[in-house]
Amino acid sequence: MNVTIRGHTQHFRTVTFDRAKNSVLLIEQRLLPHEFKIVPAKNFKETAAAIRDMIVRGAGAIGATAAYGLAQGALAFRGNDLRKFSTHIENVYRVLKNARPTAVDPVNAMNDVRREMARGKTVEEKQSLALAAAEEFANEDVRHCEEIGRHGTKLIRNGMKILTHCNAGWLAFVDIGTATAPMYAAQKLGKKFHVFCDETRPRSQGATLTAWELAQQKISHQIIADNAAGHLMQRGEIDLVIVGSDRTLGRTGEVTNKIGTYTKAVLAARHKIPFYVCIPLSTIDWNLKSGFEIPIEERNESEILGAWGNNPRGQREFIRVANPTSGARNPGFDVTPAELITGIITPAGIFKPKELWKRRKELGFSD
Amino acid sequence: MNVTIRGHTQHFRTVTFDRAKNSVLLIEQRLLPHEFKIVPAKNFKETAAAIRDMIVRGAGAIGATAAYGLAQGALAFRGNDLRKFSTHIENVYRVLKNARPTAVDPVNAMNDVRREMARGKTVEEKQSLALAAAEEFANEDVRHCEEIGRHGTKLIRNGMKILTHCNAGWLAFVDIGTATAPMYAAQKLGKKFHVFCDETRPRSQGATLTAWELAQQKISHQIIADNAAGHLMQRGEIDLVIVGSDRTLGRTGEVTNKIGTYTKAVLAARHKIPFYVCIPLSTIDWNLKSGFEIPIEERNESEILGAWGNNPRGQREFIRVANPTSGARNPGFDVTPAELITGIITPAGIFKPKELWKRRKELGFSD
Repeated sequence: MNVTIRGHTQHFRTVTFDRAKNSVLLIEQRLLPHEFKIVPAKNFKETAAAIRDMIVRGAGAIGATAAYGLAQGALAFRGNDLRKFSTHIENVYRVLKNARPTAVDPVNAMNDVRREMARGKTVEEKQSLALAAAEEFANEDVRHCEEIGRHGTKLIRNGMKILTHCNAGWLAFVDIGTATAPMYAAQKLGKKFHVFCDETRPRSQGATLTAWELAQQKISHQIIADNAAGHLMQRGEIDLVIVGSDRTLGRTGEVTNKIGTYTKAVLAARHKIPFYVCIPLSTIDWNLKSGFEIPIEERNESEILGAWGNNPRGQREFIRVANPTSGARNPGFDVTPAELITGIITPAGIFKPKELWKRRKELGFSD
Repeated sequence: MNVTIRGHTQHFRTVTFDRAKNSVLLIEQRLLPHEFKIVPAKNFKETAAAIRDMIVRGAGAIGATAAYGLAQGALAFRGNDLRKFSTHIENVYRVLKNARPTAVDPVNAMNDVRREMARGKTVEEKQSLALAAAEEFANEDVRHCEEIGRHGTKLIRNGMKILTHCNAGWLAFVDIGTATAPMYAAQKLGKKFHVFCDETRPRSQGATLTAWELAQQKISHQIIADNAAGHLMQRGEIDLVIVGSDRTLGRTGEVTNKIGTYTKAVLAARHKIPFYVCIPLSTIDWNLKSGFEIPIEERNESEILGAWGNNPRGQREFIRVANPTSGARNPGFDVTPAELITGIITPAGIFKPKELWKRRKELGFSD
């Protein structure tokens, strides 16, 4: 999407590849929203470190980064020995996989690249195929988000006020994002609308990343406390809710997403406000039979007890807000049942949550 | 309630009076939860400044502070001239009233004191009557909170997990508090229970004041993000919700309280979890006919865009969390309809919200 730096507007993807320097170029997301900077990962080890240290985060974005990282590793190989090349690739794969050992996207992405490479007969052929496959992975991520935008934008009418929670924006993907895709598409069509970004405590991704994205795209928006959406809905100030999903159960239509999503769905149902979830196909889980089977990550309590931000001298700092002798509970995600979800926006169209299973073939399900 | 300082536990009220030094003694609430300190307001102007600068805050607490401030002003008068005394008292009254011009509690409290003073025939008599009336106002505040505790504690059973929002604790009153009163009473009866304190963004009164109170009283508790209560309710981890109220409509049973209260009531209703509101009688509004008539204060957006806390060097500091080019909406309160409220706990007993009007005589309604 577009970023304006010192008055100059330019298009960026979250992840790109510099062929000449064999570098993966990444937006340094840890500096946002206070500073925008592109950093190069100059070899596959630096790329793995960037994933591990969360310079880049978000399902689609780390998938593409790992795909490029594997291609980058392949391209750095010198010589024609296929055996040595193969050993080298296995090492690159392992290092990149271990950067976020529980994430599924880097593995899926690298398997795509590896499958393509297998078609090559020489090292050189395999190197070209690797890069082409990584580019294709990134481009497909963008196309999927564009399709989500194309379907979802039909829901946005002029003058609407839209609520979103957390960040399922372009920074979490290669470009465009999922929950933000219908908004960016609506803007292109000249529609006028306003977005309320839930702050999204404790990590404040709404106040930092989503608000930054919308500001860069010049979309009218305001940040609200996570406590405020109920009141705004009661006073008729919210017309539509759009969120992302970390894991959607293909069999039941239940959605796992950032903590607080369930609360917004309950409020929306009470006020008869449409509640939509945007999902890339990779987040559909076709195995689990109930949302209660999903383990909910309990995160570090320090996130609840304070906040990160810029102090008056412009330095990033953690402040302790809470009573020093109190502890916290910090579940990271919650599960929204299908009955509260108006529709699920996929690259293949908008479906009722209970329809996903019936449509599993077109949604990429494989036995 | 009890406060433990360097291993030594002592009972404190939020507001007391030192007759020998003619000073109002206040807990410096702006330093909490990081430091506990009693500060003296040595004359009525300092007392007014303490109210204005929010050294003391909360309905009952600022009422008692103003009552003591008026007595303090009366006691500082030298001489026997009743005309001059009367002029002096009007000045003291005005200065204290203007400290928080929109608050109703200081005015009601000072009117009580002035009514009592009128019974005196000499300056000396009026001075004694003023102090006695101020003491009586403070003691009545404590008795009312005790009564709320006595009624409310019947709802708390062993092993319960209780959710509360914001701070309606003893710091907001002279002692005991309203939403906390049933908990403190249950503790005295030897009941075991656990409290989840909503952080209560943007001002974090739950994470700072309520958590501090509960820690001092050695009540088992944890702070949670405002986003987390829905998830905990869904997983069966909350059995009861108790909150306070800033304004309760006597005609409809609607409750105005800190932003986010309505959301918790909606969630509790969905999960069939009892939702109780504790109110001192002074917060009942017998005039308004609908919660939609209540103007909802829109507070400064900076509260949403960052947070106050202690930096790593122990200094209190504001950090900017949100994207620097984004703005915010910041409604301070919301309105919970009667249908979502299981019961209203008053000093006179627990009532259904719709019963308040029928019981208006015993709840202090005057035509």
